[in-house]
Amino acid sequence: MLASVAAIPASTTTRMEPRTVRDRLDSLTKPRGSLGRLEDLAVRLCSIQDTLDPRTKPRRLVVFAGDHGAVASGVSAWPPDVTRAVLDLSAEGRSACAVLARSVECELELVDVASANPPPSGGPVRVVDLARGTRDMAHEPAMTGGEWRAAFDVGVARAQQAHRDGIRVAIAGDVGIGNTTAAAALVALCLERDPADLVGLGAGADEDQLARKLRVVRAGLARARAIRSDPESAFGSVGGFEIAGMAGFQAECAALGVVVVLDGAIAGAAALCAERSRPGTQRALIAAHRSAEPSHALVLDALGLEPFLEWNMRLGEGTGALLLLPLLDAASAMIREMATFADLTDRLTRA
Amino acid sequence: MLASVAAIPASTTTRMEPRTVRDRLDSLTKPRGSLGRLEDLAVRLCSIQDTLDPRTKPRRLVVFAGDHGAVASGVSAWPPDVTRAVLDLSAEGRSACAVLARSVECELELVDVASANPPPSGGPVRVVDLARGTRDMAHEPAMTGGEWRAAFDVGVARAQQAHRDGIRVAIAGDVGIGNTTAAAALVALCLERDPADLVGLGAGADEDQLARKLRVVRAGLARARAIRSDPESAFGSVGGFEIAGMAGFQAECAALGVVVVLDGAIAGAAALCAERSRPGTQRALIAAHRSAEPSHALVLDALGLEPFLEWNMRLGEGTGALLLLPLLDAASAMIREMATFADLTDRLTRA
Repeated sequence: MLASVAAIPASTTTRMEPRTVRDRLDSLTKPRGSLGRLEDLAVRLCSIQDTLDPRTKPRRLVVFAGDHGAVASGVSAWPPDVTRAVLDLSAEGRSACAVLARSVECELELVDVASANPPPSGGPVRVVDLARGTRDMAHEPAMTGGEWRAAFDVGVARAQQAHRDGIRVAIAGDVGIGNTTAAAALVALCLERDPADLVGLGAGADEDQLARKLRVVRAGLARARAIRSDPESAFGSVGGFEIAGMAGFQAECAALGVVVVLDGAIAGAAALCAERSRPGTQRALIAAHRSAEPSHALVLDALGLEPFLEWNMRLGEGTGALLLLPLLDAASAMIREMATFADLTDRLTRA
Repeated sequence: MLASVAAIPASTTTRMEPRTVRDRLDSLTKPRGSLGRLEDLAVRLCSIQDTLDPRTKPRRLVVFAGDHGAVASGVSAWPPDVTRAVLDLSAEGRSACAVLARSVECELELVDVASANPPPSGGPVRVVDLARGTRDMAHEPAMTGGEWRAAFDVGVARAQQAHRDGIRVAIAGDVGIGNTTAAAALVALCLERDPADLVGLGAGADEDQLARKLRVVRAGLARARAIRSDPESAFGSVGGFEIAGMAGFQAECAALGVVVVLDGAIAGAAALCAERSRPGTQRALIAAHRSAEPSHALVLDALGLEPFLEWNMRLGEGTGALLLLPLLDAASAMIREMATFADLTDRLTRA
């Protein structure tokens, strides 16, 4: 389903030629290549923004929330109430994503797409309330194709707003108890893999939950594969509202030239769907880290992305992507502010 | 020479028990361990500062500069003039370390310990001018034991000043054409290794330079090993003034409870010497990254440190250590600002 992604040669994935950026980096006063991966990061950033004068601020994390009917089949260690609680804690600035966003100077927007128990409208959380979670994919399609599309469009609208607000770097984050189950099913669908290779511990499942999770994914996947000619219905049948929102956000950011820093397993599944719906989304992505969730490494390979951090993270909420932002700032500062060898020669001649 | 370092068991390398920090991390609203290496970073930071309320600002990079007589034996791709030029560019805020320090909000202090062509006194560079570089270790001891001690004491004084200034996190950086040769010799001496395992490309040596570098290191090492019972003379015979200054700085920061974020190959060689002179220095170190220089991985192993970035960096000047600082900020924010499960239970009960 996604053969086209893996087939994109590196040289056509960006607008500015990487060679142009490397030439600029090689003109700076340092041994060639001596800043290693920081230079790779600068190449990717400049290529996406199509400039040798890249900007990394302002930036925004948009967290999409939704609940999952499959929790009724016992796939998670946590009750759906936690989705709402994390949203509320985020609004107070005390969840993981809120604390880390503040630390790295990133704006935070909270969007409740379809949680089981949405917060009140008019508060700090943007409440879309498309549904009160998905249906249980163990027994029926989680979402209709129309529901998938509506949630995708929520993300598109948030990307358009971010672009209007001058955002240069964006992150899609997730909150949704049960969503590693949906993500595993989506990745299995897109990459035509056995779900046994993809289902992981999520937010702390035990062995019994893991076995149930795999059975649920297999049931959903059989249904999705039967309707693969209609991608939105196929995605929806195993998807999640928040994942569709993230996919729409990533796809539209990419179309608008906004850099997307990719988080872990849920963001990766969304990016695969985004690339399928809007080929070329991959070109705007920078992979922050390789998650502990097993599907993520396969997703990064399929998207042709090399992550910058190997930190064994698996929290979600965009947290892994947030950690890359100050390193992106450093890469930008390097290429914008360092002296060149021409400056140095000039100095040595004068001395 | 450093068997004692490798023998320090992890549990005694810090004051606060790591378990105490882990318990606090496990009380925060996230799946246990789900922030991966960020949690390891918090454990190390809190253990060194002996608190669950760690601070990462203000912080300071002190760059120590010195030249190397071995450059006359053709060990480097660069002329010694570059040491001075990098100092001058740093004072103007345009070298790699100056640009990255600004990006990560780190103070920068420049100390010319013994460069061949020191900048004028009274300017932005603190000029100590102990010598105009080392002698060529291919033919004679690079420094006397007394010179090593004097340079070490320069670093001790800079650490004491940093501590008086309220610095919480410190980095020792290096500038010195030819100093990967000295660092390889020091590491070979401390770890009793064949220098062929340690000599690397430095700041871009070619194959001929590499062969010369290995011959120079072997000559110096033979002399150093003959006087190993007098460590300062042994270190001096293959050392560098800036490396001794870094070692003194690291050792004194550690003694004063200031966290030391360790950079690459030169900082690593200095840390080995510091641990030898002042056992326990290791307890204050956090390894930022694993350098591309081959000696560095062996040094980290010997010091019992697991680096956080694998970025293939080899520039020096403290640049790799600087990149870890915003991630240290994030680790600190996590443990200080995130809500606990007690808060969450309270919320769910009220709802």
